[in-house]
Amino acid sequence: MKKIITLCYCSILLIFSAFSQQKTIQERLGYPKDTKLLIIHADDLGVSQSENAASIYAMENGSVSSGSIMVPCPWLGDIAAYARSHPSADLGLHLTLTSEWKNYRWGSVLPANQAGSLLNTAGFLYSDTDSLSQIGRPEEVEKEIRAQIERAKLFGIDPTHFDAHMGCLFINPTYLQILIKLGREYKVPILLNKEAFKLLYNIDLSKYISDKEVLLDKVFMAQPNNYKAGMRDYYTTVFKSIQPGLNCILLHAAYENSEMQAVTVDHPDYGAAWRQADFDFFTSAECRNLLQQQNIKLVTWKEIRDKLIRN
Amino acid sequence: MKKIITLCYCSILLIFSAFSQQKTIQERLGYPKDTKLLIIHADDLGVSQSENAASIYAMENGSVSSGSIMVPCPWLGDIAAYARSHPSADLGLHLTLTSEWKNYRWGSVLPANQAGSLLNTAGFLYSDTDSLSQIGRPEEVEKEIRAQIERAKLFGIDPTHFDAHMGCLFINPTYLQILIKLGREYKVPILLNKEAFKLLYNIDLSKYISDKEVLLDKVFMAQPNNYKAGMRDYYTTVFKSIQPGLNCILLHAAYENSEMQAVTVDHPDYGAAWRQADFDFFTSAECRNLLQQQNIKLVTWKEIRDKLIRN
Repeated sequence: MKKIITLCYCSILLIFSAFSQQKTIQERLGYPKDTKLLIIHADDLGVSQSENAASIYAMENGSVSSGSIMVPCPWLGDIAAYARSHPSADLGLHLTLTSEWKNYRWGSVLPANQAGSLLNTAGFLYSDTDSLSQIGRPEEVEKEIRAQIERAKLFGIDPTHFDAHMGCLFINPTYLQILIKLGREYKVPILLNKEAFKLLYNIDLSKYISDKEVLLDKVFMAQPNNYKAGMRDYYTTVFKSIQPGLNCILLHAAYENSEMQAVTVDHPDYGAAWRQADFDFFTSAECRNLLQQQNIKLVTWKEIRDKLIRN
Repeated sequence: MKKIITLCYCSILLIFSAFSQQKTIQERLGYPKDTKLLIIHADDLGVSQSENAASIYAMENGSVSSGSIMVPCPWLGDIAAYARSHPSADLGLHLTLTSEWKNYRWGSVLPANQAGSLLNTAGFLYSDTDSLSQIGRPEEVEKEIRAQIERAKLFGIDPTHFDAHMGCLFINPTYLQILIKLGREYKVPILLNKEAFKLLYNIDLSKYISDKEVLLDKVFMAQPNNYKAGMRDYYTTVFKSIQPGLNCILLHAAYENSEMQAVTVDHPDYGAAWRQADFDFFTSAECRNLLQQQNIKLVTWKEIRDKLIRN
């Protein structure tokens, strides 16, 4: 009798499991199947005062739903103070293994002599992901990422998600597997999308994930040609193209002030004016109206984490 | 005959040496004895973009003659780029063993695990000199200061002088002796003044120096009561009080913008408004006129270094 009950129980579990896998992410989160969910995600928090202040404003008064913090950067303390005093803010970690600006750079969280393969001769993280991928030893990558996560926790940040600055942990399957392992260990969703992995990194994401991972259906990020043609046009087109499912827009909000101009000197792509344009759009009434017209529902990583991963 | 000549030569040397010791510093630099020499010295370069930009402006267009760079700070790369492209700028090292702001902090140049006694549990330099003096092991102080000097050189800075942020190397005779040793080794003058050492640190500077060291006759720095009463009044009084000899004014120039307000948050003394007031005075026509009226001659550390130490 006990065996039969156990078998029945297992069958129900199997059916339920198969059913849950068929469910869309919006249904798993408790929304109707035709819901267009969107995360509007500001990268690079912690890099500068300008980036912190503009991103916080855009989260509090604009349409930005989430932010992502760079732990090794100089303005970590400032955004961490905000995180501690605003525990409902949706703040994850923009895990960082590169330092791309000309005169304003940062090193590892690990002591430099423990992160040798991740640092250039001046002790800074490399400016590009190619150098990182060629030289960065996986064991030092894992140690450094762990050190960044632990440092964020020490500063009172309870990360809602993980993603990777300049895709530094997406660039090869070895680093990706480290990131997925740490996401599971810390019970935190990771910004993952099959299409982007195939397109940008020629990686078949299916090989490395299980049904534990939450996948985005679509990710959007403005490219230099979009910026040149005008951010308003680009984001309007994106909003109009959004389909039911879990969507994400990556942006970079900062004020085009003297600090941000000096941070991004000689680097017009993703520079100060670009970040001001992102800020302007995502704090506009037009953006809010478009979201409403297109029947798009904003969602946070925290909701995803707490309903689907830490449930 | 040879012996007599040698004796004569020695006597001449002794007479010359006694004579040179009697000479005032202004005479040793080639100026008349009644010359009022003044170094107008901007501290804290490297701490922020605002501090760098305002200090550079005040050196190029105002009356500031010298600046002093904090090597462990986030904006080192920016001021180092300026130093490389402006080799005649008078830039020394504001050697740094403290990190005093609330949410914007920095660690050591040494890997954290080699500078344990200089760092708090979050890996930052202490916020005050009392903690440093009680805990900081002299051998780690020396290693860290050496690392800062070598890092400055790696960044293309040829320091014109050394001084110490928040007096961190003046606070006890042990640290002071390390600083004097490194000044001699790198052939760089140090910002030293007998009166200030006695008053602020109860140290008799005479015990630790030789005639190799160049001493300032008088050092001035605005205190909170001077700031409250008005910087213009304070500096006007200082200029009118200046006597023949080698004088130095320490100031902190920055723009009172959002970056500097966030750096100095909850810390009104030496805060953003204070630094703007310093900037305003030292870039004013009034300041320039006062210098002229009082017959004060600006001088640089570079001139002192090259005429008296590297001669």
